[in-house]
Amino acid sequence: MTLHIKIGMFDSGVGGLTVLREVERFLPTDSFIYFGDTARCPYGGKSNTTIIRYSIENSTFLIKQDIDLLIVACHTASSLALDTLTKTFNIPVLGVVRPAVALAAKVTQNKRIGVIGTKATIQSGVYQKELSDILSGAVVLAQACPLFVPLIEEQFANETISKLIVKEYLKPFKEEKIDTLLLGCTHYPLLERLIREEIGPDVQIVNPATACAQAALKIKGDAAVFTKQARSPGKIPHQFFVSDDPHSFRQIGERFFGIELPVIQTVTSTFH
Amino acid sequence: MTLHIKIGMFDSGVGGLTVLREVERFLPTDSFIYFGDTARCPYGGKSNTTIIRYSIENSTFLIKQDIDLLIVACHTASSLALDTLTKTFNIPVLGVVRPAVALAAKVTQNKRIGVIGTKATIQSGVYQKELSDILSGAVVLAQACPLFVPLIEEQFANETISKLIVKEYLKPFKEEKIDTLLLGCTHYPLLERLIREEIGPDVQIVNPATACAQAALKIKGDAAVFTKQARSPGKIPHQFFVSDDPHSFRQIGERFFGIELPVIQTVTSTFH
Repeated sequence: MTLHIKIGMFDSGVGGLTVLREVERFLPTDSFIYFGDTARCPYGGKSNTTIIRYSIENSTFLIKQDIDLLIVACHTASSLALDTLTKTFNIPVLGVVRPAVALAAKVTQNKRIGVIGTKATIQSGVYQKELSDILSGAVVLAQACPLFVPLIEEQFANETISKLIVKEYLKPFKEEKIDTLLLGCTHYPLLERLIREEIGPDVQIVNPATACAQAALKIKGDAAVFTKQARSPGKIPHQFFVSDDPHSFRQIGERFFGIELPVIQTVTSTFH
Repeated sequence: MTLHIKIGMFDSGVGGLTVLREVERFLPTDSFIYFGDTARCPYGGKSNTTIIRYSIENSTFLIKQDIDLLIVACHTASSLALDTLTKTFNIPVLGVVRPAVALAAKVTQNKRIGVIGTKATIQSGVYQKELSDILSGAVVLAQACPLFVPLIEEQFANETISKLIVKEYLKPFKEEKIDTLLLGCTHYPLLERLIREEIGPDVQIVNPATACAQAALKIKGDAAVFTKQARSPGKIPHQFFVSDDPHSFRQIGERFFGIELPVIQTVTSTFH
């Protein structure tokens, strides 16, 4: 009998839909509850304390929905809050950082790895630290790209400007001969074409959403971690919750992330 | 005897410091309490309901500090929440929108006025409506510039990119022969040099912070609106509160807005 699990996933906003898409591709028979903290997004420029507090509140909401596995789709929250969440809750908690680090360490040949992300993610030093921990002799070059998220969310039409911004942020990597580039923010896969054009064909681009999806599949395979029996009648339709009104989430999610969204519910009680 | 008043001012973050600077220039003997809602900023892309809720919470906090006048330094909040705040609280409430509209209507010669702001401000239509209301025959051209705030807050060093973004957003105005451009976001005065270079010398640039400061002076002159007597011993030092930790606020405020900041206190109890 197939085990069906209920996966709760949160992100600061709409970006985590790139993770949802990948995890669903690997676990197509399971159920998903997604929470986007749109009233308080973005997390990228905020303090550690605030990001940890928001992460606990978001997780508490999802756990009340009776989930079996919690996925922190947000890189900023994965960087800063994962240990706290793992200690606080008694279900498996999976972030996007560790799976991405493991994949980057596996694919690099010259051990020169570039990481791009929000200001908070890069300043946290988590990617730099975890890569150095598992890959002896690793040289990690990290670059915050704070204009990428607004560039993507605003669907900035001018290709010239988008290219210039990408070129500016990637400049340090070209000089440093990296062979692997880790996209340390949920939005960045949407810039992959421009990033690829700029960085050249020889650099491996690591998308943490794919790494996270593989890790989720592995956790599910180890069914012993789940305390409950197989659910019946199996897969339920996706549920989407946001903390602001859903208009903008739906617009960006559907038009730009290309994901068809059902009813989106707004919850404000615990997300002020 | 000089009347000393205590002015409470809030903004979604650090941008309102441009308003503080102007109001203080006009009212140098009065006391200021500034609140920056840095844990939930920016407001620019959020819904009306959420922005109104945040505005009420911020104002409630300031009014508990025993202020005489409330200034909403944030254009998004001024656009969406001013009427609610005026009805809810029994002290004078001043926004940045109406004074700016009055000034723009006064300086335009050809009645063709451009307005730039965040997505929420422009979509609210408030500037367009209020300008049309007080200036018969006004042609108002509005343009959201969602990359300007991150461009400024990240102190994006590349002048070429900054110029290209400014050029792109201002393009519609150049074709439409406006003679007045209203900077409908607290941050935008920091881009004034680039905007001036792009828009040319003949367009009047209206900075709402200056218009708001003039309006505050006028309200103070009409002392009858204040229920309390002159305070003693007069001016108290500025007080600054934020809802996230103050590091980033201080950094941007001091380095970029050029304002010397004393101790900044974090308050989280009512700003989740």
